[in-house]
Amino acid sequence: MKQDKILIVGTGALGSFYGALLSKAGAEVSVVCRSDYSTVKQHGFEIKSDVLGNWRFKPSQVLKSTTEYKGQADYLLLCSKVIPEIDRIELIKPAVSAKTRITLIQNGVEIEQPLIKAFPDNEIISGLAFVCCNRVAPALTHHLAYGKLTLGNVDESEHRPNGAQHLADLINKAGIEAIVSEQIIKDRWLKCLWNAPFNPLSVLSGGLSTADILSTQEPLIRTIMQEVMQIAKACGHPLAMDSIETNIQNTYAMPPYKTSMLLDYERHHSMEIEAILGNTLTAAKRENIPCPTLDTLYSLMKLIELKAKNKQKQQ
Amino acid sequence: MKQDKILIVGTGALGSFYGALLSKAGAEVSVVCRSDYSTVKQHGFEIKSDVLGNWRFKPSQVLKSTTEYKGQADYLLLCSKVIPEIDRIELIKPAVSAKTRITLIQNGVEIEQPLIKAFPDNEIISGLAFVCCNRVAPALTHHLAYGKLTLGNVDESEHRPNGAQHLADLINKAGIEAIVSEQIIKDRWLKCLWNAPFNPLSVLSGGLSTADILSTQEPLIRTIMQEVMQIAKACGHPLAMDSIETNIQNTYAMPPYKTSMLLDYERHHSMEIEAILGNTLTAAKRENIPCPTLDTLYSLMKLIELKAKNKQKQQ
Repeated sequence: MKQDKILIVGTGALGSFYGALLSKAGAEVSVVCRSDYSTVKQHGFEIKSDVLGNWRFKPSQVLKSTTEYKGQADYLLLCSKVIPEIDRIELIKPAVSAKTRITLIQNGVEIEQPLIKAFPDNEIISGLAFVCCNRVAPALTHHLAYGKLTLGNVDESEHRPNGAQHLADLINKAGIEAIVSEQIIKDRWLKCLWNAPFNPLSVLSGGLSTADILSTQEPLIRTIMQEVMQIAKACGHPLAMDSIETNIQNTYAMPPYKTSMLLDYERHHSMEIEAILGNTLTAAKRENIPCPTLDTLYSLMKLIELKAKNKQKQQ
Repeated sequence: MKQDKILIVGTGALGSFYGALLSKAGAEVSVVCRSDYSTVKQHGFEIKSDVLGNWRFKPSQVLKSTTEYKGQADYLLLCSKVIPEIDRIELIKPAVSAKTRITLIQNGVEIEQPLIKAFPDNEIISGLAFVCCNRVAPALTHHLAYGKLTLGNVDESEHRPNGAQHLADLINKAGIEAIVSEQIIKDRWLKCLWNAPFNPLSVLSGGLSTADILSTQEPLIRTIMQEVMQIAKACGHPLAMDSIETNIQNTYAMPPYKTSMLLDYERHHSMEIEAILGNTLTAAKRENIPCPTLDTLYSLMKLIELKAKNKQKQQ
């Protein structure tokens, strides 16, 4: 059997973890990495997984840019953050061949459209990772729990290609659950139902855990979720009626949790405000759905982002 | 002419400044102060005013509690913050005689009702201070600029008593402008038009100045102000149509400014969330005015207050 050629672009916690899994499953995995380049080039990645044990992931090619990639990738996994500073199309373009399946393992809603437009002849797979892992040092990734990957072709027509299934098979082979969804766009909206309230509120509260937020401001959480439900429905992706209830109950059952946006904020990294809130509001405006609460959260997050930038300038 | 007996309750920057002015004007001014008691008892207050020069204000009686007050006050000036931890009625009750005019120099809207109810036979004067002064050390107050005091009887009927005018005369005599308003409740709503957006946003943004907030999120400011306009109108105090425009333009003209709520937050003091936002929302609910933006701000401020309390517990 022919070995799959896979290129990972963006090797933070997520990219290094799934790259390491695909390598474990027998694929030929290369990486484009920026900050940790020299460490990765010399030693590869070290993966410390509380679930699968520890192993070293030595990429086939370690590159500074997609322009250096040799060969034709079967899959390109884009695992960067979705922030305005990153032009995702320019970032991956040089390594996209006619047969390359572009796979987005990224946060947010409506993040596929620009790539569909830029690469109309490529298969585009959208992916949602439910994983708890951290980059604890250069080229060192700690996988604490979970890992489930949901993959789906953004083309939901009957005769769509099925590259998502093969990728899921590889992840499953490596010991982590991956499934193929027939409605990945709706799945993104469902994830947004949780992300839209808890990510901004964790930052705006000054760093409260999801447990503290929910136990004191449940009505606000429900209001935000209701706005997201209405937008998703207007976009043609109605979520199940009990989605809010399920999300609320699941969050009560979770241990106190720091959101990715809060972690980014505390580390002085860019936050995915546009991917999570901005794109949601763009959809709402397009579909004429009023959402005063999301509007307010978005404006407040822009203020907090401005303050963070002002602070960094002063340092 | 008989010397006015005045008791100041709450001798932060505001209380010490207006107390010192009234003393300067010839009144017999006593004070109830907590934290700075021993310094004030020994040396009185030192007032450093960039407008009026420096002087020492030696109160007639320096007390730890209103229970110790000897005599009958003509005016009791309540200058404490309006926060749930302070029971304003219990605080002043022991020093309120039949003739005492209770004067509130405090922030917020609808803060008069509990006092009107508790002291139905006393004249109640509501006051708004436009002053820039700080307590820079125990019993040392720095007056930087402004100082105008607007006073008005909460009873707006024709045959109301006119204690406000005499108090304004004393302040004017001391060299700071004081005026009597025929519509002090409306004046409070007008002040709320500015306070309701800028106070919470300065905290929620992580500490931005009014200039940064306004120049990047003017539409949000306008939305919040529109909600306040509707509530004020429903409460019987319609503000002038151009109030929003005037406030916006005045704020653009102001130097970058830190709100009182932001200063309290930075100093780990209690914030006047209830007086400014909570009371506004109570009025909105009573009058059936929807105000999703103010609702969101209030909830977020409760979260940030919770986080601040959690932090203090940990220390």
